[in-house]
Amino acid sequence: MNSSKGIAYCQGQYMPVDEAVIPILDPAFTKSDVVFDAISAWDGAFFKLDDHMARFQRSCEYIRVKPPHSDEEMRTIMAECVRRSGMDHAVVFILCTRGRFAGGVAFGHPKDAENGFIAYSVPYYWIVPKERIGTGAHIWIADTRRAPDVAINQRVKNFNRMDLTRAQFEASDAGADAPVLLSTDGFVTEGPGFNVWIIRDGKVLTPGENLLEGITRQCVFELCAEAGLQAEAVNMTEADLRDAGEVFISSTGGGVIAVTVINDKPVGNGAPGLTTGKLGDMYWKKRSEGWDATALDDLLEPEIAQAAGD
Amino acid sequence: MNSSKGIAYCQGQYMPVDEAVIPILDPAFTKSDVVFDAISAWDGAFFKLDDHMARFQRSCEYIRVKPPHSDEEMRTIMAECVRRSGMDHAVVFILCTRGRFAGGVAFGHPKDAENGFIAYSVPYYWIVPKERIGTGAHIWIADTRRAPDVAINQRVKNFNRMDLTRAQFEASDAGADAPVLLSTDGFVTEGPGFNVWIIRDGKVLTPGENLLEGITRQCVFELCAEAGLQAEAVNMTEADLRDAGEVFISSTGGGVIAVTVINDKPVGNGAPGLTTGKLGDMYWKKRSEGWDATALDDLLEPEIAQAAGD
Repeated sequence: MNSSKGIAYCQGQYMPVDEAVIPILDPAFTKSDVVFDAISAWDGAFFKLDDHMARFQRSCEYIRVKPPHSDEEMRTIMAECVRRSGMDHAVVFILCTRGRFAGGVAFGHPKDAENGFIAYSVPYYWIVPKERIGTGAHIWIADTRRAPDVAINQRVKNFNRMDLTRAQFEASDAGADAPVLLSTDGFVTEGPGFNVWIIRDGKVLTPGENLLEGITRQCVFELCAEAGLQAEAVNMTEADLRDAGEVFISSTGGGVIAVTVINDKPVGNGAPGLTTGKLGDMYWKKRSEGWDATALDDLLEPEIAQAAGD
Repeated sequence: MNSSKGIAYCQGQYMPVDEAVIPILDPAFTKSDVVFDAISAWDGAFFKLDDHMARFQRSCEYIRVKPPHSDEEMRTIMAECVRRSGMDHAVVFILCTRGRFAGGVAFGHPKDAENGFIAYSVPYYWIVPKERIGTGAHIWIADTRRAPDVAINQRVKNFNRMDLTRAQFEASDAGADAPVLLSTDGFVTEGPGFNVWIIRDGKVLTPGENLLEGITRQCVFELCAEAGLQAEAVNMTEADLRDAGEVFISSTGGGVIAVTVINDKPVGNGAPGLTTGKLGDMYWKKRSEGWDATALDDLLEPEIAQAAGD
């Protein structure tokens, strides 16, 4: 099996991720009626697996789908996707789809669909070009706004991303790495796959409304507590973001990443901030020390774990 | 080929629609990065095909995708999906997907993807239960709001429908047939697959903002002009809808359909309105007379059209 791009568990079988498919009539496609989560697997262990699984279950409940596997079974499948891919650094996606209607008909009430579960591993990725990790990302405050929670609850990790994709074009048209979207109320929300932070008057601040509460965002709160830094979720405007002395983003795809340019203007003196650097160093140091790590081998079926360990 | 559920054209081949699939890594799925349109095919002819194709092209341009077929080729494929399904009354869906990245990798910039085209026919459907067509639909004004155009431009026919699906659950929980969503500004927008109309002081009124400008909505404007009725797009509140003497919805899936119950309260005297009935009768009479009809046979490849006509 060609595992170089990753391994999927789809329709009850393991396969190369680039061969995995879903029916075009599944509302997971035709109505983006699906929730997901993304978990990093690093040197044989998942990071903050319990937090990701709890968020995934909350997402499922919100759209009223139920994965056809127990939590324990899903963890085993996820570990198996990583093991079979042979990757040391991977991200595993898990999806609960609305699923097809009985008899394969095109339409029906969502409550009557047979919910599905898909998992797949892909190589670990960086949410901005990797060369920016050291020098700082260039972000773009987009004109496109983030869909508000009263329409699409952004605490639920979902695929309704037309706003994010449009903003991504705005950013790349302007030569920036990634966009940040404001809410319809004019407050900073998030970018595609990351949360946003500023440092102001010694406080580490991040928006609190109309966004996904990222697991890495939660990590930053933990790191700040450990470092004796005051961290808080607050409403922030575009001006707050532009005027901040330090800006960074947090993501499963890269941890803590400095932002050094916002809409073509340098942040502070244009170099990654000192506090950002400290938090980023702490993040990777703690990761390497086994921070909230769950060994893949402990999740595999016993006979597989034993064989994998041989 | 089992054509009972419809025929799809997918990845360059015709197949039973319930066997057609898309890759799970296609951003059309993982980011709902896809636009579509839906055209009725009735007794051997498409209805208002030019209008649908023009709207589809506008949708494509908005999200910056380009179907890998000419307009003429797409029309031939669409006709072929109907012919091969053997259905007298069908709806054909056409989709332009963002498509996969070169090499089948999981991530990339949307501008680098290879856009795809999918078409499929399914049996003609009614947007509300068919038994309501005569007696009037029961609708429910949902708490969930429609995502605003500044986030997701609803003039672009798209699959980002988490708001619509959540509202659909609200409606069915309340025992209604379908939801109507308000905008974040508190104005009536649309329901899943239909536009909304009221008749007030002899005028036929429909919302004009934050909604898909339905082709059947445009038909109603045409019918009103023909019947000497004044029709207009205006902002309308929930109270305007609840207090109207007549309410109806318009959709490719059923034409003009009376609404007789809104949030458990009867509309007017609880029976379908007279003007609604008149517009509905006009709609189907004109359809039967070949209103803006494009014969499928004129779109098929010449040799196929000849064989189909044998």
